[in-house]
Amino acid sequence: MARGERGVTPQSEDFSSWYNETVTRAQLVERGPAKGTMVIRPYGYRIWELLQAELDRRIKDTGHENAYFPLFIPESYLKREAEHVEGFAPELAVVTHAGGKELEEPLIVRPTSETIVGEMMAKWISSYRDLPLLLNQWANVVRWELRPRLFLRTTEFLWQEGHTAHADAADALRETLQMLEVYTEIARDIAAIPVVPGEKTPGERFAGAVQTFSIEGMMRDGKALQAGTSHYLGTNFAKAFGIQYLNRAGTQELCHTTSWGMATRMIGAAVMAHGDDKGLVLPPRIAPYQVVIVPIARGEAAEEVDTAARELAGRLKAAGIRVHVDDRPQVSPGFKFNDWELRGAPLRLEIGPRDLAAGTALLARRLDAQGEGGKVAIALDTAPQTLAAALEEFQAFLLRRATDFRESRTAAVEAWPEFAQQVTVGWASALHCGRPECEDEIKAETAATPRCIPNAAPVESGICVRCGAPSAYGKRVLFARAY
Amino acid sequence: MARGERGVTPQSEDFSSWYNETVTRAQLVERGPAKGTMVIRPYGYRIWELLQAELDRRIKDTGHENAYFPLFIPESYLKREAEHVEGFAPELAVVTHAGGKELEEPLIVRPTSETIVGEMMAKWISSYRDLPLLLNQWANVVRWELRPRLFLRTTEFLWQEGHTAHADAADALRETLQMLEVYTEIARDIAAIPVVPGEKTPGERFAGAVQTFSIEGMMRDGKALQAGTSHYLGTNFAKAFGIQYLNRAGTQELCHTTSWGMATRMIGAAVMAHGDDKGLVLPPRIAPYQVVIVPIARGEAAEEVDTAARELAGRLKAAGIRVHVDDRPQVSPGFKFNDWELRGAPLRLEIGPRDLAAGTALLARRLDAQGEGGKVAIALDTAPQTLAAALEEFQAFLLRRATDFRESRTAAVEAWPEFAQQVTVGWASALHCGRPECEDEIKAETAATPRCIPNAAPVESGICVRCGAPSAYGKRVLFARAY
Ligand SMILES: [Zn+2]
Ligand SMILES: [Zn+2]
Repeated sequence: MARGERGVTPQSEDFSSWYNETVTRAQLVERGPAKGTMVIRPYGYRIWELLQAELDRRIKDTGHENAYFPLFIPESYLKREAEHVEGFAPELAVVTHAGGKELEEPLIVRPTSETIVGEMMAKWISSYRDLPLLLNQWANVVRWELRPRLFLRTTEFLWQEGHTAHADAADALRETLQMLEVYTEIARDIAAIPVVPGEKTPGERFAGAVQTFSIEGMMRDGKALQAGTSHYLGTNFAKAFGIQYLNRAGTQELCHTTSWGMATRMIGAAVMAHGDDKGLVLPPRIAPYQVVIVPIARGEAAEEVDTAARELAGRLKAAGIRVHVDDRPQVSPGFKFNDWELRGAPLRLEIGPRDLAAGTALLARRLDAQGEGGKVAIALDTAPQTLAAALEEFQAFLLRRATDFRESRTAAVEAWPEFAQQVTVGWASALHCGRPECEDEIKAETAATPRCIPNAAPVESGICVRCGAPSAYGKRVLFARAY
Repeated sequence: MARGERGVTPQSEDFSSWYNETVTRAQLVERGPAKGTMVIRPYGYRIWELLQAELDRRIKDTGHENAYFPLFIPESYLKREAEHVEGFAPELAVVTHAGGKELEEPLIVRPTSETIVGEMMAKWISSYRDLPLLLNQWANVVRWELRPRLFLRTTEFLWQEGHTAHADAADALRETLQMLEVYTEIARDIAAIPVVPGEKTPGERFAGAVQTFSIEGMMRDGKALQAGTSHYLGTNFAKAFGIQYLNRAGTQELCHTTSWGMATRMIGAAVMAHGDDKGLVLPPRIAPYQVVIVPIARGEAAEEVDTAARELAGRLKAAGIRVHVDDRPQVSPGFKFNDWELRGAPLRLEIGPRDLAAGTALLARRLDAQGEGGKVAIALDTAPQTLAAALEEFQAFLLRRATDFRESRTAAVEAWPEFAQQVTVGWASALHCGRPECEDEIKAETAATPRCIPNAAPVESGICVRCGAPSAYGKRVLFARAY
């Protein structure tokens, strides 16, 4: 398939160009003027709002409260947790001047908020009765990126970051895994991405964490994308910031803290997990417009058809369906079809005078099992029910398709050549010795990294796929090239 | 009334101390580590979320779409609109280093986003068909404050900023006034603040605006607080950033743009418009907990009472009421009563074993016409309906009380001594010559400034209350000391 005048580069030709062209032409996002920043356009921001609403509800349902902590963190705070500052130092943006003067102490634009939240937690917690303290914030953060990529790695991005404090390790670890499960649900049930939840190997941990968990999704090119992380921080930040409580016995103890985040990166994940050569394919639950109606009529029939389209849109809206009528007079129906395919609308309805006379409309799905969207006539009378069901089906179809794809591109490998081959097309499930140097060699040779040790993996041990040393973790590790 | 051990400084003694003690002890907010920043705690953030939900719905209902623009703005952008940069220069925070290096061009942390939005609008608009372009963003902004004040003037605050582009002045001005009306509704119908919408005098305009409108609310000390602004920017930013369109006749024309914002300052406004010597008084529509249930029982009755309280809470929640059961075992009922008065819960329900036996609970309002909350028994059976009605009444009562207060503290004044006296207790409605020097003299002598020229003021002219020159504007101007 060649690149058409209005089409995007095919995925098979250059996945990276396909991605950049798709997200910008579909009007999700574009580059901002400052290096690595992005402007999230209304169509992209609406996807974020839909994800946010689902995630925020689950964050609240699990007992967390939203709060807001300052953007600016004194430089000295970051230095209090040694591993943390070491991990983030190369990515920091620093405010040195404000109000026309040089500041006495430079301010860091938050790359994440463990330090400033830790400082406040220390003030707010005094007794076991104050625990657990379950906080979350929706915010922008800044991490200077050398190789920025829209949504995936931007200098500034939007996210939520949860921060909690607990009386003991068990409760903190339970929280860490609970939020990983929430992320798994959001990815699977909302974005239709069948992610694999698991633990990171030590080399891939968050700077300052005792254990890091992530969800990993497979993109259409077989690479992995980390779509959310949840960290058990032990008492590292509690020690650095003095987060302590008086237990029931009247003794001071350190709190165990956690943090967890999901970002606008998730939009990029949805694009790459479902898109095709025509452009975006949006799961209905995050589609700004789930149904796009294209009225097709010229001359005197046009008014009647437009009126019918608007009336239908009103009924769909009343049924809770996000609908858009594309009544642009200056472009042709064919242009609109291509446009809404590029922009990933799950369902399209065409209505012309003959359909109207027959009390029907033509329904086209963005794609079906064959990758083509055949058209079927549906009755206008029962359109709300028909389309609500079609949207549910389409959502389920995308998840099934992504699950099949992930399974077809994941293989348990036992030997090195097999491993090296597998990570060129997908994920390799392998035993590994756990040595950082061995991870480094694998990365140098294949560009693959350990994505996670899947929580659901069965107990297994043997020898390292790379070096032959005894395997670690008691489980297989998932390796892949990653975004 | 003297300051009790747990009470706050009375308003009459020192309004400013009352405010600072109230917002921090009620756990709305506290100071952040970097100068002038604030940490918005869950109880305060929930108020913001409730305001946001109401405002966001109205912004969308009037056809606007949310988007997100970068935090960092190249310094050169701000300089393109001369008045704009002059107005904001003293308040800017500047990032000079990032990713371990000094930046070639310093980045400004956005104080407001007209410039960066203007740059993008210029790319997105080409024809009259692209207009009006109606955008909004929810974001944090930074303005370096010399005299910071929690919620009212903080170095960083949260807000929404709308940015729109139109084909002509009439459409842009209609938009400016429409959003002023939306702000008026939010203040009046949600925060129970009977604000006065009007136009700013030239000296009080937004830097770069042709016309600035605001809503002004009266606080319990008689001062004014600007709770939202809406600006008609003419073609100033369109010229600076090249925001143009091809009209129907095929000619390039400049767009007319607007911007409008409402911020976390609104929380401070609600605190100062309704609070009393016991602490906060929250309008039900923005109260995190509209009803607080305090179970009162010891020993073996405790379990039964707690169960009944939770069962009642479940029924209230199902009826859409935000309810909280204060079952803290470590503090007394009296402590809880004071605490929820301080924190401004509109209604409190007490349930003890005798109430339970009688199928009732004791209802106390946070305040009534006498400023005291008398208790009445209500039936548990019908509590959801009774309380829903009581919340509506309380909301209406607060608005009526604030309206009466504003009217009693606003006076039309004709002569200077009268003016000088009036602004020590409230607002003065006066004719003014419109000369900036005369405004300056008034400010120097009385600390009062022109708040706005009320939209609803009748046509009137005569001589300036201060200097005797002919009056300007064809209307009276509202003068007051302000936050
Ligand atoms: Zn090895
Ligand atoms: Zn005068």
